[in-house]
Amino acid sequence: MKSAHASLHFREFQWPLRVYIEDTDAGGIVYYVNYLKFMERARTEFLRSMDFDHYLRSEEDFMFVVAEAQVSYRKPALMDDSLLATARIIELGRASMRFAQSITRDGSTLATGEIKVACVSKSGMKPRAIPARLVSLFQHHYGIPA
Amino acid sequence: MKSAHASLHFREFQWPLRVYIEDTDAGGIVYYVNYLKFMERARTEFLRSMDFDHYLRSEEDFMFVVAEAQVSYRKPALMDDSLLATARIIELGRASMRFAQSITRDGSTLATGEIKVACVSKSGMKPRAIPARLVSLFQHHYGIPA
Amino acid sequence: MKSAHASLHFREFQWPLRVYIEDTDAGGIVYYVNYLKFMERARTEFLRSMDFDHYLRSEEDFMFVVAEAQVSYRKPALMDDSLLATARIIELGRASMRFAQSITRDGSTLATGEIKVACVSKSGMKPRAIPARLVSLFQHHYGIPA
Amino acid sequence: MKSAHASLHFREFQWPLRVYIEDTDAGGIVYYVNYLKFMERARTEFLRSMDFDHYLRSEEDFMFVVAEAQVSYRKPALMDDSLLATARIIELGRASMRFAQSITRDGSTLATGEIKVACVSKSGMKPRAIPARLVSLFQHHYGIPA
Repeated sequence: MKSAHASLHFREFQWPLRVYIEDTDAGGIVYYVNYLKFMERARTEFLRSMDFDHYLRSEEDFMFVVAEAQVSYRKPALMDDSLLATARIIELGRASMRFAQSITRDGSTLATGEIKVACVSKSGMKPRAIPARLVSLFQHHYGIPA
Repeated sequence: MKSAHASLHFREFQWPLRVYIEDTDAGGIVYYVNYLKFMERARTEFLRSMDFDHYLRSEEDFMFVVAEAQVSYRKPALMDDSLLATARIIELGRASMRFAQSITRDGSTLATGEIKVACVSKSGMKPRAIPARLVSLFQHHYGIPA
Repeated sequence: MKSAHASLHFREFQWPLRVYIEDTDAGGIVYYVNYLKFMERARTEFLRSMDFDHYLRSEEDFMFVVAEAQVSYRKPALMDDSLLATARIIELGRASMRFAQSITRDGSTLATGEIKVACVSKSGMKPRAIPARLVSLFQHHYGIPA
Repeated sequence: MKSAHASLHFREFQWPLRVYIEDTDAGGIVYYVNYLKFMERARTEFLRSMDFDHYLRSEEDFMFVVAEAQVSYRKPALMDDSLLATARIIELGRASMRFAQSITRDGSTLATGEIKVACVSKSGMKPRAIPARLVSLFQHHYGIPA
């Protein structure tokens, strides 16, 4: 993957979570699809950590959609596990951002992923620039260049 | 439960469905919460059988929300099971309707439920009358009195 | 509902949780089915608060299944909401227990529920007595009579 | 991607499905995570079309787990949409297989994916050979070389 900002080695955001029965499947493990939910919780809390939330309910005409998702599964997570979901921006474009993410348990990596998130208008779902306010927050909190 | 229309013994609508791994949990059975999804599929297809669908995406200012749900679980459903979800209207009010529902497998009842669905405005989520077009469809297709 | 232990007015257990996009539906609100997941998280954490967890993964031949669920919905929860899920035992039988539960936001009740949980064998899903260890924990932590 | 069988251009399996409210999110579209469920339904039905099902509930010591998932999203699916999920084997290894998959609506591609599925023991989750019976079925039904 080519990065517009080759030197983006930003601080990783970490979010703890617990595995409930709702997350599991009849194989006795966490249903692999749900790792994507865990990764999204980390991205959502990463934005919230910079006071960027509630935008879906606002009048502002933007929302974020996942454009690409890639996940590699190494070890299963189990009912009652205490996990850590991580999120780190590795690319910041005008209308999209790319995250490197992981799910770990006691320091052991269970899954890794790369998620490309695109900014689109709520009306029409057309690509649009990431709001300037969020770009400023990235700069302020994480030193991510606009 | 008192019914405004004590004699509502209408035809039951039946919808077949298959259990996938997504529906199961680590107990090895269908996650009980998902029976509510199965029951909703039957209600949705019941409305679609009368050509009443796509309303959520229309400009019309109504939607349906579940106001009460009651489910009794008798036997577990399992991965790969072929099930039947049923829906039958047992009460039709001005702004709400009540369904008796079941999940069966080979004629054996796995779960039964009663679901009260309310009609609300999309804007503001306020109770409002069930659209006249739907009431007419109930009369036409099922002989349900308005 | 008649209670075998009419005077069961036990301490309520509270569990905070956040609404994520995974919990919502195209009506713009939390999908009503997911309140049952929130309520189960509270029950699971209630047991964990007494160090009763990981049993699903143990060799012990019991698990819990929901036998009856009843939920009343009053107001919708929304994306980004910070909620409180509560759980309180209102009946403790030999092989089942009944919980009164609620979902609240800023002190306002969004939904209430009553959930009957049955203890069954993992092998065969047959009803069996709630493990003595859990009954002791109820007595020790909550003063719930066996 | 390197394929052990460069010429694997097998028949595509197609499975129709309907979008229900359970599949959507507050963005008004199908929650992107759920495309992975749709793709898995197509893989499951592809196996069932060769009478290969119910193995998760059998005594045989194997199950399938997803090792890698990659999905590209092009256009959103919406409530009430009638979709087609496709699955085509593009690699068949000793202990894993790789599928090319898509979700289409009226001939228009909404999402594509590549999913690597590994065969593991139920006991211990260790990699093991795909059951000979399934390899034979692939040969018989699809001419896929072992």
